[in-house]
Amino acid sequence: MYPESIRNLIEAFQSFPGIGEKTAERMAFSILDFDDEKVNLLGENLKQAKEKIHPCPICNTLTEDETCFICQNEQRDRQTLCVVEDPKIVFLFEKLGTYKGLYHVISGLISPLEDVNPEDIGLEKLLERVKKEKFHEIILALKPSVEGEITALYIKKILEGMKVEVSRLASGVPIGADMEYIDSLTLERALEDRKKIS
Amino acid sequence: MYPESIRNLIEAFQSFPGIGEKTAERMAFSILDFDDEKVNLLGENLKQAKEKIHPCPICNTLTEDETCFICQNEQRDRQTLCVVEDPKIVFLFEKLGTYKGLYHVISGLISPLEDVNPEDIGLEKLLERVKKEKFHEIILALKPSVEGEITALYIKKILEGMKVEVSRLASGVPIGADMEYIDSLTLERALEDRKKIS
Repeated sequence: MYPESIRNLIEAFQSFPGIGEKTAERMAFSILDFDDEKVNLLGENLKQAKEKIHPCPICNTLTEDETCFICQNEQRDRQTLCVVEDPKIVFLFEKLGTYKGLYHVISGLISPLEDVNPEDIGLEKLLERVKKEKFHEIILALKPSVEGEITALYIKKILEGMKVEVSRLASGVPIGADMEYIDSLTLERALEDRKKIS
Repeated sequence: MYPESIRNLIEAFQSFPGIGEKTAERMAFSILDFDDEKVNLLGENLKQAKEKIHPCPICNTLTEDETCFICQNEQRDRQTLCVVEDPKIVFLFEKLGTYKGLYHVISGLISPLEDVNPEDIGLEKLLERVKKEKFHEIILALKPSVEGEITALYIKKILEGMKVEVSRLASGVPIGADMEYIDSLTLERALEDRKKIS
């Protein structure tokens, strides 16, 4: 039904995460309203991003430079390390602007169900780094799920005997959420981790 | 904060209709997981669509060929014409598969508020066509809004004296909608257009 070039474009857009058929169709049609320059620029942007971006050799944060903007920054607190499971999360934290330490990106989480083992997610590199750099605290900012818990426990274990404090993000009731819609696991954790009002 | 090429890509994706910041970020990051071939193909798809697609000289439906797949199709009912305000709508109707007539795409709707006048939306071409081809019925499938109504009335007026029936889509309560959330204009129209149960 669609002309071939439109159909190809719709399919291409649909292969992005979170883009459904309707949105892909809307995007494909809007290309026709763009001027040639903009279409060429978009194609160029795609190629550039793909070519230039690579993980920082120190912490795996995505960068175009030799090392990433965090590792380059002399002002960061070099005694605190935040471990995240995906490079996107680094930028999420940086948008907050409150965290001043360094990061280390691992490649996902341990998942026995999906056959992802500790050696698959780059924990060796993390361990090497912790041995070399003198961190006071390692914050595990991993997904609050079974896989996240397993991975956190595993990291805690391999760091045993090293003089470093290991913490995790607080779990609990999200700010602004309706109490009646909170799932029971979250509520349980929120109760367990309750804080004294002083 | 983001590497430049990622930032450019996020901005490019955000310029699409319906793509917000979060989705644009997600799309940009996912490019890095695509292989080179896929990225090149996407760039190629963009260029191809932009280069090859043009409005059908008869009805303005988007096509890669000399005329569109509807106008080419000898099986279509050539006595019924459906007038739509946007080429996307043609494909929406074709997905239904129940309409067997021809289409004519005008360029949007008359809008006194936004200074869009009858001569801006290609009504002359529609009039020419109606004069030349022998339609029994013209169905105005325009947006149910003030602009849609104005445009429908205007088309009805310029077709006056010609031996052709002009109809519009039924307005009313959308199937499956909760009655309590229907706006009053829609409800009013649904009441006005009520149909006898036979």
